[in-house]
Amino acid sequence: MSFFSNFFAKKNTAPVAKDRLQILLAHERSSRTGNSDLLQKLQKEIMEVIQKHISIDQEKIHVKVDRGNDFSTLEIDIEVPQQNQSNT
Amino acid sequence: MSFFSNFFAKKNTAPVAKDRLQILLAHERSSRTGNSDLLQKLQKEIMEVIQKHISIDQEKIHVKVDRGNDFSTLEIDIEVPQQNQSNT
Repeated sequence: MSFFSNFFAKKNTAPVAKDRLQILLAHERSSRTGNSDLLQKLQKEIMEVIQKHISIDQEKIHVKVDRGNDFSTLEIDIEVPQQNQSNT
Repeated sequence: MSFFSNFFAKKNTAPVAKDRLQILLAHERSSRTGNSDLLQKLQKEIMEVIQKHISIDQEKIHVKVDRGNDFSTLEIDIEVPQQNQSNT
């Protein structure tokens, strides 16, 4: 398992079996002229992509934004309903 | 900086200043009936979303897939050209 999957595995303490989808976006800008609100633009459209494939309960979405001068991250954590997972 | 940004910071050893966008997707399935190829479906459409905002050199995209029975991850690492970052 990659370093990354360990990161996710640790969070799986929920007693009740749940399906989960996590999306992490990181934008590293060496030049200050870089597109600083890129993650905000991507967030909305990525959520629309996901909702085409998964029916999502808005209360089961957790979003965390961490904006620095040259480094921004966006974490989206979605609890996926098990019964009607695939819309396609 | 969150745990997540430490993960990204470590990889920044490139001498030449580069802008970088990383996308990490993780799908945790407690039930075997879960949508196991969800990440593959999302990958294509998420790349299309990104390319609306950033002009991307196909050679500067690195994709890593890690598929387990109940846990799959998808890592997309994109070197972002500095000059024409924003298409919008």
